[in-house]
Amino acid sequence: MFFTIFMGENNNYKYLTKIDYPADLRQLKIEELPQMCEELRRDIIEELSMNPGHLASSLGVVELTVALHYVFNTPYDRIVWDVGHQAYGHKILTGRRDKFCTNRKLNGLKPFPHPDESEYDTFCCGHASNSISAALGMAVAAKLKGEQRKVVAVIGDGAMSGGLAFEGINNTATTPNDLLVILNDNNMSIDRSVGGMRKYLLQLTTNSTYNDIRYRLSRKLIDWGILTEKRRKGLIRFNNSVKSVLTRQKNIFEGMDIRYFGPAEGNDVMELVRILQAVKDMKGPKLLHIHTTKGYGYAPAEEDATIWHAPGKFDPDTGERIVADDGRPHPPKFQDVFGQTLLELAQRNPKIVGVTPAMPTGCSMNIMMNAMPKRVFDVGIAEGHAVTFSGGMAKDGLMPFCNIYSSFMQRAYDNIIHDAATMRLNMVLCLDRAGIVGEDGSTHHGAFDMAFLRPIPNLTIASPYNEPELRRLMYTAQLPDKGVFVIRYPRGRGNTVDWKCELEEVPVGKGRKLKDGKDIAVLTIGPIGVEAEKAISIAELKSLNETPSSPLHVAHYDMRFLKPIDTEILHEVGRNFKKVITVEDGVVSGGLGSAVLEFFADNGYEGIDVKRIGIPDKFVMHGTVAELYKICHMDAESIANVLLAASELHPKEH
Amino acid sequence: MFFTIFMGENNNYKYLTKIDYPADLRQLKIEELPQMCEELRRDIIEELSMNPGHLASSLGVVELTVALHYVFNTPYDRIVWDVGHQAYGHKILTGRRDKFCTNRKLNGLKPFPHPDESEYDTFCCGHASNSISAALGMAVAAKLKGEQRKVVAVIGDGAMSGGLAFEGINNTATTPNDLLVILNDNNMSIDRSVGGMRKYLLQLTTNSTYNDIRYRLSRKLIDWGILTEKRRKGLIRFNNSVKSVLTRQKNIFEGMDIRYFGPAEGNDVMELVRILQAVKDMKGPKLLHIHTTKGYGYAPAEEDATIWHAPGKFDPDTGERIVADDGRPHPPKFQDVFGQTLLELAQRNPKIVGVTPAMPTGCSMNIMMNAMPKRVFDVGIAEGHAVTFSGGMAKDGLMPFCNIYSSFMQRAYDNIIHDAATMRLNMVLCLDRAGIVGEDGSTHHGAFDMAFLRPIPNLTIASPYNEPELRRLMYTAQLPDKGVFVIRYPRGRGNTVDWKCELEEVPVGKGRKLKDGKDIAVLTIGPIGVEAEKAISIAELKSLNETPSSPLHVAHYDMRFLKPIDTEILHEVGRNFKKVITVEDGVVSGGLGSAVLEFFADNGYEGIDVKRIGIPDKFVMHGTVAELYKICHMDAESIANVLLAASELHPKEH
Repeated sequence: MFFTIFMGENNNYKYLTKIDYPADLRQLKIEELPQMCEELRRDIIEELSMNPGHLASSLGVVELTVALHYVFNTPYDRIVWDVGHQAYGHKILTGRRDKFCTNRKLNGLKPFPHPDESEYDTFCCGHASNSISAALGMAVAAKLKGEQRKVVAVIGDGAMSGGLAFEGINNTATTPNDLLVILNDNNMSIDRSVGGMRKYLLQLTTNSTYNDIRYRLSRKLIDWGILTEKRRKGLIRFNNSVKSVLTRQKNIFEGMDIRYFGPAEGNDVMELVRILQAVKDMKGPKLLHIHTTKGYGYAPAEEDATIWHAPGKFDPDTGERIVADDGRPHPPKFQDVFGQTLLELAQRNPKIVGVTPAMPTGCSMNIMMNAMPKRVFDVGIAEGHAVTFSGGMAKDGLMPFCNIYSSFMQRAYDNIIHDAATMRLNMVLCLDRAGIVGEDGSTHHGAFDMAFLRPIPNLTIASPYNEPELRRLMYTAQLPDKGVFVIRYPRGRGNTVDWKCELEEVPVGKGRKLKDGKDIAVLTIGPIGVEAEKAISIAELKSLNETPSSPLHVAHYDMRFLKPIDTEILHEVGRNFKKVITVEDGVVSGGLGSAVLEFFADNGYEGIDVKRIGIPDKFVMHGTVAELYKICHMDAESIANVLLAASELHPKEH
Repeated sequence: MFFTIFMGENNNYKYLTKIDYPADLRQLKIEELPQMCEELRRDIIEELSMNPGHLASSLGVVELTVALHYVFNTPYDRIVWDVGHQAYGHKILTGRRDKFCTNRKLNGLKPFPHPDESEYDTFCCGHASNSISAALGMAVAAKLKGEQRKVVAVIGDGAMSGGLAFEGINNTATTPNDLLVILNDNNMSIDRSVGGMRKYLLQLTTNSTYNDIRYRLSRKLIDWGILTEKRRKGLIRFNNSVKSVLTRQKNIFEGMDIRYFGPAEGNDVMELVRILQAVKDMKGPKLLHIHTTKGYGYAPAEEDATIWHAPGKFDPDTGERIVADDGRPHPPKFQDVFGQTLLELAQRNPKIVGVTPAMPTGCSMNIMMNAMPKRVFDVGIAEGHAVTFSGGMAKDGLMPFCNIYSSFMQRAYDNIIHDAATMRLNMVLCLDRAGIVGEDGSTHHGAFDMAFLRPIPNLTIASPYNEPELRRLMYTAQLPDKGVFVIRYPRGRGNTVDWKCELEEVPVGKGRKLKDGKDIAVLTIGPIGVEAEKAISIAELKSLNETPSSPLHVAHYDMRFLKPIDTEILHEVGRNFKKVITVEDGVVSGGLGSAVLEFFADNGYEGIDVKRIGIPDKFVMHGTVAELYKICHMDAESIANVLLAASELHPKEH
């Protein structure tokens, strides 16, 4: 029983049910807020126990959420959350309590705050570290437009390691604005926070602030009787000297002319309200440093905030996580295949090192990290640095495997070009969560990577069809002189239970023919090829049933490499097929389909009808991967329909 | 006469001519180094006066360059320069004195250090702020491999505002390494440095360091006679208290556990050598803060380091800059058209604000900045922040024009997607220096932007054919509800002397037919269309001469928008032409040509021969724009040849 105080009170809230919007919240007395927070916390826990999502970070900021909406006049005042994981309480208090059960579901509430959903959501906040920059923009806009609104950015200490956050703070210091930055310090992002700024913040906390020191020193002056007439002149000089010590050695924020307050206890709602009321009208940029506990108020989550970051379903009373287990063997997650294979390779090849920007658990690099802690580097939320740092190591002879989620790799684009590709360094970039990711939605789909990487010279870009292929590609990538080797693979389970194949080299730039056929050639890259394989079976079977005399025969090629693309296969296809379908789990503008079109155009293959299947030119919403594949017409059924339509297709007349 | 000490000594060096490599330098006595520095400085000035390049930053670090190569065992020890502008002295001392006259020229020395050119060049350094991350990688590699080498990163205070540098420092603090970071503080990047970190560094400088304060306080203790027996006990407590004040309030670097030294005088070579010798063998991460004067030792450059950042040709004796002027009117630079038009628009539309990451002069936003200082924001070298900050302003109703060089926009890729496109904010992204830029070479060509931007939903992407078109596009972009509007244009002069047209709206997604024709359709985007126009004239004339009975007639369409692409034009072309040539000043993988291929494939236009002309799939070197166009077959002559070949082309047999 982890939160017995709630026992027997189920859905029997004193305050929460009466609060639809922050305006209602502001009717409460300050003394009523602690109870209000308890109710909000309980609501989050109960909802999340049934409808999985991000638990621990939202629990940690319950008090902050209530205090902010209590003190500030939202939505006129702007609260900019950094990473929307933590904003569940915010959603519940801003008109979305009834819909909160649809959170992260298809057509339901978005996984992260987004202005399209609510006027209380001031900015898109799926990727960490952008809040200060965005909020500064709003604060400047308020100033230029003569509006009296307040702007608050709420950023965690994990997100503070991101370069963008630093750029924001750096600019906040010298731009006229009244921004309030709240640094929510919980020593966690998803895994534990790392980096120098972390150390620095810890110091600000464990040691006294300079105001406190000044007070203690002045006491000592009196104790020692320095306040005699004889030493009056000396005293003044001494005092000035002490003052100069104390005021000149400012902390980094004060040194930037950002007023610093704190650290304060961030899970005490009444203290927070008092502090926020005190600072809200102050002019100029301000930073309030608070401490919160990730998972606060729910013992299991407080004890292991990494597991409880996104725990899945669980029993709210016992804290037992509910794992569906049908007793049958399942294909492993690509992540685990990556993690175990990386360790296996690292045991053989002493040059291999691992680099992850704050995602050792998410990408399973923690397997190698536990076995070889000195050879794995968690650099914090710092994707650009992760790539350039890997580049430096590669330059001096190590073989880095740098693993970054595809959508976050967008942050390291210039680093890939400038700090890796220009020098043809031998290093591996693993893009986890490539393609449609599901419930994390539009900001987290790894939709663009093939399109944005393909134009970069000197890159090798590969995607495995299944788990054994991932292993083979990883093995190949770390062999000598392979250059910058990109491997993209999706979130979640693959399709091969017996995945632990031998580690063999794959010829770079070579795909493979999975199935012969004569009518249509299907070219795929990555595990979406399995959908295409199913589609081919469906279409061929249907065709056999409907026209047994001339059944459809579809060839299937797993291209395996986007770059260099297998020109032998493409020549074979160009010579033998008039109908080609490309399937990829990425945007259709600029990816595999485009590469195929370019090849046919460059090599004079005319009159080939090419249909490109992939993510369309729009931001795809959230839902299960299966639901979203259907919406994007990338599921087996949809692909089969395209095959059947193509089999009857004649060139259009215009 | 700015440096009379050199008069009459032309090329009559005592030391420099004997120094081919740093090993030779290390034979000198420390007392000989000042003279050595003078000679190196003089060599740089004389070379640069004839062969334009980056002067002021290289002059500022002459002493540092000499000291580093004197103290460290290069190339075994690693020096990582941040932004290679400053590395001219480094080049001259590392085997490239004789070739220095080819610097930045076609097939000559690269504009920035690059490992392909010299083993002394440890990393690619065209884009700012990457040195710490790369050097940390090398330092970690040394440690893991058990090598004794030292690694030094040299970073300017301007580059320190970049988020990547912060990510690097943050990670340096907590990764086992012996890296030495030299912070070269000259209060300049190209324009003046800005931001909070700048303020903070200034404080470290103008005030005493804590060691100094501790010394002064201990003197006072003696002065005041506190050293009596009676106060012995109190003294100890006092001392501890002072110590706690002094040690707890560390500066940001010390607070991160990076040992901090400085500030030191960076233009005093003997002092630098002594300091470097003292710190080089210390374990753990270290930061040495030095002050240098940009342009040091050459009065004109010291006086105006912005102009003398890259002054063009000049008379070394008088400091007079040599401006070629044939007395005829010239088309303006696209930059000036941008700058003047922005001011004109801002005078009409009070919502318009300007944002630039440290390039107000380079992109000519200084015109608006001078007229309306409160409405222009130079955010420092911080491209990601520039875009997200603009997003915040756009969200609250301002209309930002955020101007970033195309190759640097690679750093804001995620910001464009996540902080602008997802929310369809009304803002303008101006990509200056798009396409081939010339002498700044491979890291600075704006080659990739069309390919990496086209896959992003909700963007409008345009490129003007000429100066009036740039004005019209800028006018259009700031009209209500145009969403995220990208305008890319090249470095340098356009082709329209009389450029100051009326400001009129351009229909979004609409191109224009420049010329009728029946045999081949040429589709272009941007000012490269002018090359195509010339090519068409050349080809048609040649064809008329050779086959007067059936002369070639080529149609020319200026697409104007890459996205949304003009489908009306494409249908017209698809229906009426069997031969199409696309021309763009960007990579051919994924750009305009690919968009045209995709359209034809999606709309069932088969049997059209499409040739794509643009930047090939490799890093293009440096040289004049004309030379590089020729190399990439993008010049009028090459395009004409493609037209003539296409006019005779029949489908290939395979």
